[in-house]
Amino acid sequence: MAKVSLVMGSISDWPTMQLAAEQLAALGIDYERHIISAHRMPDKLQSYGQQAAELGIQVIIAGAGGAAHLPGMLAANTVLPVIGVPMQTKALNGMDSLLSIVQMPGGIPVATMAIGTAGAKNAALMAAQILGLQDATSQQAVLDFRQQQRQEAEQSERDF
Amino acid sequence: MAKVSLVMGSISDWPTMQLAAEQLAALGIDYERHIISAHRMPDKLQSYGQQAAELGIQVIIAGAGGAAHLPGMLAANTVLPVIGVPMQTKALNGMDSLLSIVQMPGGIPVATMAIGTAGAKNAALMAAQILGLQDATSQQAVLDFRQQQRQEAEQSERDF
Amino acid sequence: MAKVSLVMGSISDWPTMQLAAEQLAALGIDYERHIISAHRMPDKLQSYGQQAAELGIQVIIAGAGGAAHLPGMLAANTVLPVIGVPMQTKALNGMDSLLSIVQMPGGIPVATMAIGTAGAKNAALMAAQILGLQDATSQQAVLDFRQQQRQEAEQSERDF
Amino acid sequence: MAKVSLVMGSISDWPTMQLAAEQLAALGIDYERHIISAHRMPDKLQSYGQQAAELGIQVIIAGAGGAAHLPGMLAANTVLPVIGVPMQTKALNGMDSLLSIVQMPGGIPVATMAIGTAGAKNAALMAAQILGLQDATSQQAVLDFRQQQRQEAEQSERDF
Amino acid sequence: MAKVSLVMGSISDWPTMQLAAEQLAALGIDYERHIISAHRMPDKLQSYGQQAAELGIQVIIAGAGGAAHLPGMLAANTVLPVIGVPMQTKALNGMDSLLSIVQMPGGIPVATMAIGTAGAKNAALMAAQILGLQDATSQQAVLDFRQQQRQEAEQSERDF
Amino acid sequence: MAKVSLVMGSISDWPTMQLAAEQLAALGIDYERHIISAHRMPDKLQSYGQQAAELGIQVIIAGAGGAAHLPGMLAANTVLPVIGVPMQTKALNGMDSLLSIVQMPGGIPVATMAIGTAGAKNAALMAAQILGLQDATSQQAVLDFRQQQRQEAEQSERDF
Amino acid sequence: MAKVSLVMGSISDWPTMQLAAEQLAALGIDYERHIISAHRMPDKLQSYGQQAAELGIQVIIAGAGGAAHLPGMLAANTVLPVIGVPMQTKALNGMDSLLSIVQMPGGIPVATMAIGTAGAKNAALMAAQILGLQDATSQQAVLDFRQQQRQEAEQSERDF
Amino acid sequence: MAKVSLVMGSISDWPTMQLAAEQLAALGIDYERHIISAHRMPDKLQSYGQQAAELGIQVIIAGAGGAAHLPGMLAANTVLPVIGVPMQTKALNGMDSLLSIVQMPGGIPVATMAIGTAGAKNAALMAAQILGLQDATSQQAVLDFRQQQRQEAEQSERDF
Repeated sequence: MAKVSLVMGSISDWPTMQLAAEQLAALGIDYERHIISAHRMPDKLQSYGQQAAELGIQVIIAGAGGAAHLPGMLAANTVLPVIGVPMQTKALNGMDSLLSIVQMPGGIPVATMAIGTAGAKNAALMAAQILGLQDATSQQAVLDFRQQQRQEAEQSERDF
Repeated sequence: MAKVSLVMGSISDWPTMQLAAEQLAALGIDYERHIISAHRMPDKLQSYGQQAAELGIQVIIAGAGGAAHLPGMLAANTVLPVIGVPMQTKALNGMDSLLSIVQMPGGIPVATMAIGTAGAKNAALMAAQILGLQDATSQQAVLDFRQQQRQEAEQSERDF
Repeated sequence: MAKVSLVMGSISDWPTMQLAAEQLAALGIDYERHIISAHRMPDKLQSYGQQAAELGIQVIIAGAGGAAHLPGMLAANTVLPVIGVPMQTKALNGMDSLLSIVQMPGGIPVATMAIGTAGAKNAALMAAQILGLQDATSQQAVLDFRQQQRQEAEQSERDF
Repeated sequence: MAKVSLVMGSISDWPTMQLAAEQLAALGIDYERHIISAHRMPDKLQSYGQQAAELGIQVIIAGAGGAAHLPGMLAANTVLPVIGVPMQTKALNGMDSLLSIVQMPGGIPVATMAIGTAGAKNAALMAAQILGLQDATSQQAVLDFRQQQRQEAEQSERDF
Repeated sequence: MAKVSLVMGSISDWPTMQLAAEQLAALGIDYERHIISAHRMPDKLQSYGQQAAELGIQVIIAGAGGAAHLPGMLAANTVLPVIGVPMQTKALNGMDSLLSIVQMPGGIPVATMAIGTAGAKNAALMAAQILGLQDATSQQAVLDFRQQQRQEAEQSERDF
Repeated sequence: MAKVSLVMGSISDWPTMQLAAEQLAALGIDYERHIISAHRMPDKLQSYGQQAAELGIQVIIAGAGGAAHLPGMLAANTVLPVIGVPMQTKALNGMDSLLSIVQMPGGIPVATMAIGTAGAKNAALMAAQILGLQDATSQQAVLDFRQQQRQEAEQSERDF
Repeated sequence: MAKVSLVMGSISDWPTMQLAAEQLAALGIDYERHIISAHRMPDKLQSYGQQAAELGIQVIIAGAGGAAHLPGMLAANTVLPVIGVPMQTKALNGMDSLLSIVQMPGGIPVATMAIGTAGAKNAALMAAQILGLQDATSQQAVLDFRQQQRQEAEQSERDF
Repeated sequence: MAKVSLVMGSISDWPTMQLAAEQLAALGIDYERHIISAHRMPDKLQSYGQQAAELGIQVIIAGAGGAAHLPGMLAANTVLPVIGVPMQTKALNGMDSLLSIVQMPGGIPVATMAIGTAGAKNAALMAAQILGLQDATSQQAVLDFRQQQRQEAEQSERDF
């Protein structure tokens, strides 16, 4: 059963959010994925947020761009940790997405990642680190990933 | 019966939103006012948006700050025109509020005003201009206001 | 007779403003369109603003870029609601257009939309929502559009 | 035994980070607190990051300002989730802190909160939500907090 | 007869524009001053722009803040050189004023100065430098001013 | 004899500054052009600034990018009006150039234009407007140019 | 004989630059200090830059604000390392100073520090680190300072 | 033996840092180059910083992007001068890198260069200027480079 839910507002966010999906898969973590638009289907957003915990989800990763309301509104409807991924946008390069996600008022937090693909990848790793607190397999997967990326960096130093 | 609804996320937004209230009063336009937090009472936000039209509201003015989701989420729940007022914020001076309100994706518009008190005042005037399309009294009130502010400017030129 | 007027400062703004035109057409709303440069023909700007209401226009959508004075100066010459669309610009990506349009001083409001094509599309929808207050056909057209975009989002969730 | 560690680079960050401490206390969550400067005691930073898990810590909250390296460097030394709080700064209002914390490259995530006191408070809530996945008491404390802040908002609506 | 006209949108701009006035006076250059609001009296703005040359004005200095349309709209109505002074604003510190004045499209230039009082003072000096091309007294006044500010700087080096 | 001098820091600025040259030519104004690097030949910059007036130059147009010191340092060495053109830059899009040129301290003004080609074109027009104060031919050339661009705008409205 | 020269454009920069002076004194490094305005005494700037090496200076620390040309123009006139300190400014908080100093074109570097007092203090430390490459006393002074600030941080951790 | 060490966080930074390498080579200065990731191999970063001086290194040039921690963390581990080069980044164009490097707190300086390739080239020149204080060959190489770039600028003026 999936413990992580990847939610995005539009299929156009998938090329970025795919990095989260691939990183979760590489870590051996089951996930489900959804397109839920905060603005086009606000009741679905609300009901999904309210039901996610019952569905066995433990961490929600939500990507959105521009006036990005999806992560914060999901966070308002659940006590599961919500990780926000700001999409890079056409005009303002994602600065609008970043501020719309990270500048949450006191009371409802969103764990915000970097703009774009680096943020999507890191959202998966953060989800794994959270799950790893109670699940040795997830934690080991993160440790293995860290070991591997360190070795790649060291190899690239040796080859330099 | 009130045709304009002033909504804000927190009582702390009132010192700014009060300018909208005062301008509406000066124009002779009835309004009601509400504190509805997008993040602390998301279901109330949704139900209010859905019911506003039935309650006789014609224009919603929504003020919010930081990751300001209130105007956009109200707009997603109604086809009444929603006017957004970005609060000036402590760290980023309201640039976060502005981008969170104005950068709505295609499909759900929010009519965004200037940051802070000038924006609140202008939200009232925009509401009156919208109502004025079908209500000669509101339109005349705007015309009178314009005449008056012009005269004040001219007087200040004469006194200069 | 057209109830909406699309005004832009230069033919170079048309690729963006076309989105507004297409959305208005899709909603069944008649519009006229004009090129009126605030800086190259300021008297035309003024006379157009003053006459728009008599010509039967109810909502003006004005697009402009850089030091974007067209929406605000039209607004200063009419009590019709003016919706501003900030063009994406070459150097500053439209941040200049946005601030030149949205930061109007108290007294003369411009209903500002997002930078670029999303803003142009939303300007049409906002115009329809305003007209919809007194025109059941326009309001129904917005409701139908909302229903349709919701279904597309749901379909894209099902196909995901 | 403390499950949350509050780390900051300097005692001057305490007025902000205190809001995290108070919120953790209000939620009934034990924490320890440390001053570990990334730049003045980099080996301490590294050893603390490496030992935190063994010390029973489950979540690290790290606050820093300016070229804020503390959260990211702690994150590089542990697989515990690290929550970053950007301090509001004198010249750039915390935009420097925010970008230095949130824009982590792919591989090492930091869960970034809002600039300043709202971010500090939310860091505590995010920590509680993470702990709540395996600890019913923490989760209930968050639910109670949510209930309470909702009631306060509703009360402020009633009193308005 | 005044050769320089100081125009501002509101009496609230006077504390800044006063520095232009004082510098002109110190240089022995006659000026007149006006409050002409681009938004509250747009026809006055236009007629003033069109008549300024006939009134003997040679250089216009225009100060405005926020969505600052005064300098650009005056420039559109005259071929006299227009010098723009961006007011420091409450929320965005004058970045909005600066971009609204300096980012004029090709065709109508505004000679833009720094934000706030330094810009107001420099507007007077630029006006004097322009007048100085045909008026030896103005040019000598600028040379004397430069000599004096150099001596003050040298004195402050000696006293250091 | 040339009355306008076009100065730039590097041949790489020519594609932008060429717009100034072409506009001057179209207005029938003689100009000379120079490459004088503020940083690579600072003594040449100084001697050129000091001699420009004697060489018959009346207006200097200076283009520069990044930490753009050329316009301000020329201005410090002459009492001729200096018009600054901020180059669009690779990383920061010309915001660095703009602030380095426009934010001159009180005492030495630079008449700053828009970033990039619009600014270069407008620099030529501003030079012509300044020369036009004492030279009816230049002023008429600007009036003709204005007439022409107005007709083009009107034609584009008719063809729309 | 002084090995470090502290240069600033105006006495108004002294409250910031004083932190550089105090840090140099605390490190036992002799310095001289000068007020040399890039814009008010450009020839002095040039001659000072050219003579600094002969006067025995090894490192120049230059502070400036706004369109800050002093550090870059000094750097253009000497091959001594020049350290730039951006002043915090009234309107743009020093972002203008920072970009005017750091964004030097390829060919002439300025070693840029943080905005304001932290940057001034660090300029002194950087000067000491540079001198320390050939002067064991300076290097030891930096090591002692580091040791001391580490101990203070550790003490503040113990007292926490 | 190499006196300059070029360090970068990832091989992807090499296209930029190569400009530093080429400039060092052109100046006849030996350098070594390393890939040391602050986040993927934090202990290597620390040990390298601590050993650099013993290895005979005199100046470290460190390039990094986004939440760029490498230059500041190296600086925290050595008293050698560290020169930071902010990488141009995909979303925020290097503004994130710049602020993460330059806004160091008082106590540990990083000598920050311009964003991207200009900064990389200038890092090499700054290293040479620092080495030149005790090494006549390096200083002469910088003087020759300056002479050459001046001649190229003068030639480009003659060819203009």
